[in-house]
Amino acid sequence: MYELDPRLAADTIMVGSLGISDVLLMNDSRWFWLILSPRIEDAVEWHELHTDQRQDIDFEIANVAAVLKGMSSCKKVNIASLGNIVDQLHIHIVARNEEDENWPNPVWGHGNRVPYHEDASDQIVEVLREHLDLEIL
Amino acid sequence: MYELDPRLAADTIMVGSLGISDVLLMNDSRWFWLILSPRIEDAVEWHELHTDQRQDIDFEIANVAAVLKGMSSCKKVNIASLGNIVDQLHIHIVARNEEDENWPNPVWGHGNRVPYHEDASDQIVEVLREHLDLEIL
Repeated sequence: MYELDPRLAADTIMVGSLGISDVLLMNDSRWFWLILSPRIEDAVEWHELHTDQRQDIDFEIANVAAVLKGMSSCKKVNIASLGNIVDQLHIHIVARNEEDENWPNPVWGHGNRVPYHEDASDQIVEVLREHLDLEIL
Repeated sequence: MYELDPRLAADTIMVGSLGISDVLLMNDSRWFWLILSPRIEDAVEWHELHTDQRQDIDFEIANVAAVLKGMSSCKKVNIASLGNIVDQLHIHIVARNEEDENWPNPVWGHGNRVPYHEDASDQIVEVLREHLDLEIL
């Protein structure tokens, strides 16, 4: 049975569930950073999924990336499936800007997480839910 | 008309062309690192491609990732579309291992590229071409 990895759960805030993936907000206010966690038991490597699973997840990746870009007007969306620390398959979708921390280098492994103030994350999650409601759910 | 970004061309060795993407070997011997460069003019953001383009590219991503994992027996494949430095759409497919440089942190933005000796890259490209011939072309 699928269960969200406890390290991912500890570092993120649940936004909601799409058809195949849960959407998580990384609790790190340095970047606007979402994670899709497909609810597929024992999934680790992208290329080991079935083609139809990849297509379903990719549909959600593209929609979430479009919402992220629309909300943030970021310069570039970074999309990645790494899994060097948490091997449970999950996809990072991150809004990047030239003035943000560690630009143009990656967000992973850079410094320490700066959690949101609860009001700020509540507001982001609310707006995300409105947009994902409209466009995906 | 599509033309490979000159910065990507300078840092990589051409392996060959698949149906929609060119396959490049990053000329950095610290990691076994491939790049797919879809031959689509002005492509930048993954989510702005048409669904059928994403599906075609993803088919190639999955095949190249499987070849990379088969050749390297790596612990984890990292797949990413970043584009913070070169905005032309390109997908990184990188073999990672616990003993490699900067594990478990990412390969991007870490230290300086260590080019292959030509014999070594020739051999890798040859094996890649055999495997990609068999499995994709």
